[in-house]
Amino acid sequence: MAIVVDAMGAEGGVDVSVTGAVNALAHIKDDLTLVGDRHRIEAALGAHRGVFDRSRVTIIHTDDTVSMTDKPRDSLRKRDSSLAVAMRLVRNDDQSAFVSAANTGATLAHAMFTLGRMPGVDRPCIAVTIPTPTGHLLVSDAGANVNCRPAHLVQFALMTETFFSNLHGSDSPRVAVISNGEEDVKGNDLTRQTAQSLRQIKSMNFQGYIEGRRLMMGDADVAICDGFVGNIVLKTIEGAAGTLAHMTREALQSRWTYKLGGMIIKNALKLKSRVDYSEYGGAPLLGVTQAVFICHGSSNSKAIMNAVVRASRFVELDVTKQIQQRLDECPIDPLW
Amino acid sequence: MAIVVDAMGAEGGVDVSVTGAVNALAHIKDDLTLVGDRHRIEAALGAHRGVFDRSRVTIIHTDDTVSMTDKPRDSLRKRDSSLAVAMRLVRNDDQSAFVSAANTGATLAHAMFTLGRMPGVDRPCIAVTIPTPTGHLLVSDAGANVNCRPAHLVQFALMTETFFSNLHGSDSPRVAVISNGEEDVKGNDLTRQTAQSLRQIKSMNFQGYIEGRRLMMGDADVAICDGFVGNIVLKTIEGAAGTLAHMTREALQSRWTYKLGGMIIKNALKLKSRVDYSEYGGAPLLGVTQAVFICHGSSNSKAIMNAVVRASRFVELDVTKQIQQRLDECPIDPLW
Repeated sequence: MAIVVDAMGAEGGVDVSVTGAVNALAHIKDDLTLVGDRHRIEAALGAHRGVFDRSRVTIIHTDDTVSMTDKPRDSLRKRDSSLAVAMRLVRNDDQSAFVSAANTGATLAHAMFTLGRMPGVDRPCIAVTIPTPTGHLLVSDAGANVNCRPAHLVQFALMTETFFSNLHGSDSPRVAVISNGEEDVKGNDLTRQTAQSLRQIKSMNFQGYIEGRRLMMGDADVAICDGFVGNIVLKTIEGAAGTLAHMTREALQSRWTYKLGGMIIKNALKLKSRVDYSEYGGAPLLGVTQAVFICHGSSNSKAIMNAVVRASRFVELDVTKQIQQRLDECPIDPLW
Repeated sequence: MAIVVDAMGAEGGVDVSVTGAVNALAHIKDDLTLVGDRHRIEAALGAHRGVFDRSRVTIIHTDDTVSMTDKPRDSLRKRDSSLAVAMRLVRNDDQSAFVSAANTGATLAHAMFTLGRMPGVDRPCIAVTIPTPTGHLLVSDAGANVNCRPAHLVQFALMTETFFSNLHGSDSPRVAVISNGEEDVKGNDLTRQTAQSLRQIKSMNFQGYIEGRRLMMGDADVAICDGFVGNIVLKTIEGAAGTLAHMTREALQSRWTYKLGGMIIKNALKLKSRVDYSEYGGAPLLGVTQAVFICHGSSNSKAIMNAVVRASRFVELDVTKQIQQRLDECPIDPLW
């Protein structure tokens, strides 16, 4: 039982991945396998000597890495990269999980190629967590599938709902489809057929449409969309938070009283970090045969730590099996 | 020459529309025609007695109104509503413009029915302004057309670019297509074909794709998308601003020093109003034969005033004719 971490993935360097993974050891029972350049991993581990049980960490050396600019298809040819080697280690131990802050497209390609899809799943999806004033919302698909059919969105809903139930301990998460308005007459061809199909799944707490305005209000637990819309929604939130923080900083420079007030409340104003989903520790790739967590390339060690902890919980609760059962329970009409 | 205002439209009541329209008189040469319940309009005008030239304002009485809950198709049957009467007044005077904070769907239906599309336009679009740290961005289509073909998006780009040039005095506005990433390989079927078509228009300053993160950074002037995505982007920004403001308020309550700081900078923190597009005074419906400006139902009088001023500029600069010329110059391949 091990959480396998591609130590070469994060933009911040090997230190970020290694520190995050090592800090997670206090919160998990699994051991760690760190894959990548042995010297750099050893050096990064050195900084934490004495604070963790070295016998719980295995290093697997690789010379090659997948870079952020490698195209997914090209990355598959890098059979000895840390990403490829780590993914094979996961395949060979069904109690293991994969965590990385590497190139998302490449991770997706390697997961599909090495682990493969679960039976009955057409398209795996990425479920990204965003904060709401009262909890969390999972947006799924966050970008793995750009052109989707309704049957794909129905699968995203079933898989993400199951993940939410397990990881957040909720019996019947509120599922909604992202649309351009809340009434049934709204939506496009894709969302209308999806909503109609989800309504037929009696065991789902389906809430109909949710519009952009309400996404962050805590009115749903799982928001379903195609990966094109999901990517735009998540990046728009990230961009809006950044721009608003920038505008606030500028406004705070406009009067000396504002400058004073701004100094006092500096920490309360960290808007961007509040919607920075990397803080939530990686997004699961749902629908592949094993646990795969993808972190933002710009993840810090806290994000990696959280991802490792979530990956461990994912394996412990056997979420993959739960997802399989949920899909078997609700067979999807291929005509959808 | 008159700006025709459906005085019954705004959720805030007749006062809001009348106050906004009357305050615009100082900034425009046109006269005003206010359509709706004469008694309520007279009463609202009473509050401004002496501060405007009463001879520049005509009241046209109607008994009926279109409500926010009327479906667009049903609203067309209300031939004597303030919306229908106002739209007919606009049709009968080609130097006039329509402004309303009524039901957007109904306004769109009446504009299509009474004024009609410009020759060669398949689908009129709504262009909504959002603020950036350095200026403005127009998002188009903001919600008029949910299922679109590439040819529609190309028309949105040409029309919105022309509007931007005229109203913001820019020679070659930067046009981009909203997508899930900036590289050419990103996008869905719709955006790829649209980008390919726009690249063929040599006279356009086309920048390729723009992702959600950069929308509010001031890197583009015109961002093109279908109305489904446009609605979601705009409402997500609105919702994110509201939620972030809420979270900031909560954070400011968590320590007494924060409370103190918060009191000092209260006005600098009005995040929501900074992305409240109603502040920008109405969105043009581009592609119909005359000037139509649609305001948010929850508009305040400032938004109505700005819309009336923009509508007047639109007529003065003959933007409708400019759009027609731009479309004629760049014929659109029907296969797109």
